[in-house]
Amino acid sequence: MQLPRVIAFDADDTLWHNETVFAHAHEQYRELLARHHDAKTVNRTLFATEMRNLSLYGYGVKGYTLSAIETAIELTNGEISAEEINRLLQRGREMLDHPVELLDHVTPTLEALSPDFELWLITKGDLQHQRSKLAKSELIHYFKIIEIVAEKDESVYAEILQRHHCDPTDFFMVGNSMKSDILPVLALGASAAHVPFHLTWEHERTDEQPNTPGRFHELAHLGELPALLGGV
Amino acid sequence: MQLPRVIAFDADDTLWHNETVFAHAHEQYRELLARHHDAKTVNRTLFATEMRNLSLYGYGVKGYTLSAIETAIELTNGEISAEEINRLLQRGREMLDHPVELLDHVTPTLEALSPDFELWLITKGDLQHQRSKLAKSELIHYFKIIEIVAEKDESVYAEILQRHHCDPTDFFMVGNSMKSDILPVLALGASAAHVPFHLTWEHERTDEQPNTPGRFHELAHLGELPALLGGV
Repeated sequence: MQLPRVIAFDADDTLWHNETVFAHAHEQYRELLARHHDAKTVNRTLFATEMRNLSLYGYGVKGYTLSAIETAIELTNGEISAEEINRLLQRGREMLDHPVELLDHVTPTLEALSPDFELWLITKGDLQHQRSKLAKSELIHYFKIIEIVAEKDESVYAEILQRHHCDPTDFFMVGNSMKSDILPVLALGASAAHVPFHLTWEHERTDEQPNTPGRFHELAHLGELPALLGGV
Repeated sequence: MQLPRVIAFDADDTLWHNETVFAHAHEQYRELLARHHDAKTVNRTLFATEMRNLSLYGYGVKGYTLSAIETAIELTNGEISAEEINRLLQRGREMLDHPVELLDHVTPTLEALSPDFELWLITKGDLQHQRSKLAKSELIHYFKIIEIVAEKDESVYAEILQRHHCDPTDFFMVGNSMKSDILPVLALGASAAHVPFHLTWEHERTDEQPNTPGRFHELAHLGELPALLGGV
């Protein structure tokens, strides 16, 4: 393969745990509402609220918490107590304050690649929270460019590449979300490696599969990346 | 004065109304809690909650709404009803969906300056909401560089200037907040114009006054800017 000049990484569930934190909170949420509704109804209703609010709230813990409170009021017909709502607020703050747990292979992979490639980080979500996680991760010095964006689609990637004068053929994206990290980048003519995480938020799921031989790679874990990129 | 190459604008309460939207919401909030506490107690307690949560929530409507719910539960000893909390959530969504109202003189000023200067926008706050306001404002095409940041202090401005290869002596910042728009920029050796807005959030207030003759300018409104910058 032709080697890229730039390797860009997604952050949540590519470099550090994120869905695990949400999954844990969501489990407690279902328990809170278990006397009113079964888990399926809670899941479906919360997801519908999140999707309805997405264009206003964007991604992240604060929007999740607001949607969780709204859904809890709806699903209990207003019977949820102020004390229980307080617990949801408290859980949101704990999620924002949660330690950053790096995934396996992250530090050695960045260490191996950084002498030979320009490393970028491109993540969506909440500005304050992503900045805080990045600081806690102690990975910030590896990245020449850090982009925290409201959405990761083809037009956003195109704008970032143009702004940093990077040709798509020089660009290689690594991430766990086929929808946000892989497909839009391949559509621009760049290359990408998909590193699946064992949990995927429903909104990030897609049935679409890449059909760009030579430009798309599926890895079992991040540690396989240096060998793929010429055994550096 | 030596003319700058770059003129950067703050957004909230410099280009469009923001505190007016918060002030209106806050008035309704005090009414909601009026049967429990006087306005002063409500103000003081909400502000204390916001400051306690600031490092987790950052700036913006979502954090405000979460802090408002937390404070309402506290100030009513949990007696606030789910229906009332729903109203706070609803108000938060209305604030996020609020039309963008430009301040006076904004469009003609940007129009007058744009042929002769590079215009930037540097704003803090919520990524999704600021992007949405910028799109609604129809001002986006005036700005060559748009930076939405988590905080506006000396180190953040220094990093932005360095990243865009702009010397402080070529940089001129315009904004309504002495604390966020003016003082940190003057400290870097750049110039700035303060355009006061009639409302200032308590967190943005400062008694500090610039002492940098020739580099600091106080304007009555944005329409005075072109004349200051050489009558362009």
